[in-house]
Amino acid sequence: MGKGLTKRAENYSEWYNQIVSKADLAENSGVRGCMVIKPYGYAIWEKMQAELDRMFKETGHQNAYFPIFIPKSYFSKEASHVDGFAKECAIVTHYRLKNAEDGQGVIVDPDAKLEEELIVRPTSETIIWDTYRKWIQSYRDLPILVNQWANVVRWEMRTRLFLRTSEFLWQEGHTAHETRSEAIAEAEQMLDVYAEFAENFMAVPVLKGTKTESERFAGALETYCIEALMQDGKALQTGTSHFLGQNFAKAFDVKFATKDGGQEYVWATSWGVSTRLMGALIMTHSDDYGLVLPPNLAPIQIVIVPIYKTEEDLNSISEYANGLASELKEKGISVKYDDDDQRRAGWKFAEYEMKGVPIRLAVGPKDIENGTVELSRRDAPGKEEKRQFSQDGLGDVLIEMLDDIQKSLFDRAHSYRSAQTTSVDSFEEFKQVLEEKGGFILAHWDGTAETENKIKEETKATIRCQLLDTEDETGACIYSGEPSARRVVFAIAY
Amino acid sequence: MGKGLTKRAENYSEWYNQIVSKADLAENSGVRGCMVIKPYGYAIWEKMQAELDRMFKETGHQNAYFPIFIPKSYFSKEASHVDGFAKECAIVTHYRLKNAEDGQGVIVDPDAKLEEELIVRPTSETIIWDTYRKWIQSYRDLPILVNQWANVVRWEMRTRLFLRTSEFLWQEGHTAHETRSEAIAEAEQMLDVYAEFAENFMAVPVLKGTKTESERFAGALETYCIEALMQDGKALQTGTSHFLGQNFAKAFDVKFATKDGGQEYVWATSWGVSTRLMGALIMTHSDDYGLVLPPNLAPIQIVIVPIYKTEEDLNSISEYANGLASELKEKGISVKYDDDDQRRAGWKFAEYEMKGVPIRLAVGPKDIENGTVELSRRDAPGKEEKRQFSQDGLGDVLIEMLDDIQKSLFDRAHSYRSAQTTSVDSFEEFKQVLEEKGGFILAHWDGTAETENKIKEETKATIRCQLLDTEDETGACIYSGEPSARRVVFAIAY
Repeated sequence: MGKGLTKRAENYSEWYNQIVSKADLAENSGVRGCMVIKPYGYAIWEKMQAELDRMFKETGHQNAYFPIFIPKSYFSKEASHVDGFAKECAIVTHYRLKNAEDGQGVIVDPDAKLEEELIVRPTSETIIWDTYRKWIQSYRDLPILVNQWANVVRWEMRTRLFLRTSEFLWQEGHTAHETRSEAIAEAEQMLDVYAEFAENFMAVPVLKGTKTESERFAGALETYCIEALMQDGKALQTGTSHFLGQNFAKAFDVKFATKDGGQEYVWATSWGVSTRLMGALIMTHSDDYGLVLPPNLAPIQIVIVPIYKTEEDLNSISEYANGLASELKEKGISVKYDDDDQRRAGWKFAEYEMKGVPIRLAVGPKDIENGTVELSRRDAPGKEEKRQFSQDGLGDVLIEMLDDIQKSLFDRAHSYRSAQTTSVDSFEEFKQVLEEKGGFILAHWDGTAETENKIKEETKATIRCQLLDTEDETGACIYSGEPSARRVVFAIAY
Repeated sequence: MGKGLTKRAENYSEWYNQIVSKADLAENSGVRGCMVIKPYGYAIWEKMQAELDRMFKETGHQNAYFPIFIPKSYFSKEASHVDGFAKECAIVTHYRLKNAEDGQGVIVDPDAKLEEELIVRPTSETIIWDTYRKWIQSYRDLPILVNQWANVVRWEMRTRLFLRTSEFLWQEGHTAHETRSEAIAEAEQMLDVYAEFAENFMAVPVLKGTKTESERFAGALETYCIEALMQDGKALQTGTSHFLGQNFAKAFDVKFATKDGGQEYVWATSWGVSTRLMGALIMTHSDDYGLVLPPNLAPIQIVIVPIYKTEEDLNSISEYANGLASELKEKGISVKYDDDDQRRAGWKFAEYEMKGVPIRLAVGPKDIENGTVELSRRDAPGKEEKRQFSQDGLGDVLIEMLDDIQKSLFDRAHSYRSAQTTSVDSFEEFKQVLEEKGGFILAHWDGTAETENKIKEETKATIRCQLLDTEDETGACIYSGEPSARRVVFAIAY
């Protein structure tokens, strides 16, 4: 059992915290609610960023950068937006420190008070739409397809590493369009990009849907989302894409000259994913031995550990291992040959297991004699533990195996989700499934916020989404009995 | 003359502002001193980031991320550090807004005052060394070679886009070492990385040296720097690398168990470059026609503009242009074929000239008949304007030409710097050169802060650096007449 890790079945929440810590992903800092992302965790985030950035650019987007500070008055311009964010923001009021008169350190200089307070961005719609007013005059200036990689701050009272932190890293796309339908198409396209990324890169199956009105982003007419299911049966919202209508254009007076000579407000979208994806990645695949990473996001895809007693043995193992590593690196595989002589092989095995390295090779003197290696797949601990492979053609075998691991992790998560998705037709059944099994629950809902709230109050379950790809199936609301056109997805959520 | 650009000779400062604006690089925001980096400007910054990041990783560094906020008490721990930054920082004092009782918008909620104020990082030594205390116990934990890409805030009163803004983007390396000599070697290595990047990628020649004590980073024992010369004869510090000794380890109590069983404070470096590099890039190469970009950093390296009257002409031009573009893209060249029919060719010529695209091709029906293209090199406006080239083997010609442009921009900047570097042996001569010619002035200095300050007060010139690669040459201080072991580099600086 990896380095004394708590088992999922014992305490899922503690298991999660321990993995984040023991796999060197992140830690709490001296600043309440703000995390330090450690090099190994950041290397995974960088892989996510690189792939998402490629997908954004392929769909015609460019990156830009907007100020971290938002004047308080901007914030107030879109009414529902300020309601949504005012209660959880960091506010800059002064711009200078000075030495305390009693010689006891430094204090805020009361003479350096800002005329208008600045909010550390919790999201950038307001500062960006204030800027777009200058960029947009005519339909010729549209569309604007811009993305920003940035840090944002939302003053959270209860924080958990990656899942909910006061500061987090994210990307936020902000686009401007001529027509309503073009903006909706953009919001839907970006949801598809997110879903494709989650499934193909993170190996995390997701449901695509729309939020109910009460769960929408503050200022949006429609919020699209992807929802994943964690191993404890709770849902995690992993990405959102918003159709903002003309709300921000109206709040910031952004009009354009139409082709036929009129003036119209610009149509908008925004969309984002954050370091929260790290939480989804960890909780979807990892096991009681530690982190499990899909090869597409693993900073180290293959590790080679030498098993030796003499210098001579090490030399012959190193010769072979360095050759194999070079061959794999040329094919774009990231390989680490760990010949650090300060650590024993057993320590290394536990370390790379905890860190989720997809394939571990161990090579000893006997292997060199016999032309073999000992191979262990991280996605199948025990099952294929210490299987022997021939050195002949091993490079190609490994590359295929990485593909296979990527697929098998997705399939495993998908099977889990299928097994944990239940259709129910009564509120009793709903509560029972929620209590005994958790997971996604498909149930009829009458479409009112009132019913949604009552179900939430009584069970803590929320409507995660209204599925995009679903067939109409009339029925009766499990709570009110009123007619319903289709089932929606409920779950307890992070 | 590009779109009514002010000439450098008329008003250099205005010329700079206009290029930043007209080439769509950046603009001021509604937040005092904070800039918006526009997509075209950001694309250049991304190319800088990608190359620097590659160089950092090649030298063994990993990226990580630390909180944007620094508790005030951390700030006070290293005495000279707080002195250096306290006067120019953004301070978070509250964490919530609320609706004003008079219904007039939102106000800061006085009940949501932080117990300890948070400083928006102006640089991250303090928060990082507070973290390193947890990471470092033994010599086995060393070295730590970490870099962070981040935004930082220094409350500047007089700001200029890219050169001096209240918020800017940068990278900051923070390393921890067992020995003094290893830390010094690291600081010097990173200075070399910066110099190599500046010269080979930005085509900006730089002087490498150390700062005098009064110009050192707040908390450093030695500050290494690279200094470039702008076309108005003023110097621009483009990167710094600091040997921090044990100052931060002592302030944050970071000790390690040495190999022989003792306890010692850890040795440190930090090093950074910022979006200020964009200012150096613009001011080194650009001309009275607009931006000039070295091919290594140009988002568009080659643009192809069709010249046509009929649809039929356009079709045959497009067929050729798309073929050429594909060929070049396969070879890693970024090409734009601009067949936008909303703009005339003349408008496009002016636009790409302003944006500094290294090579422009124009292709008309006659060219299609004759198998030619018309080519213009951005680094030689006028001289090679509208030279004809054969379509045969054009791909290879263009790739060679991009190399040649990269080299010729560096050579031009290097010649300029050589011509603008003057050795003087008296204070009279010093003042005269400063007044009439500017540039770098090599002069003897007695090594005292007193003389340095007096020269600065009387002339505004500062010691930019004490050259690393220089021969000893004894002489007499131009100001005091006291003996001096070697010349130092003076200039008026940005």
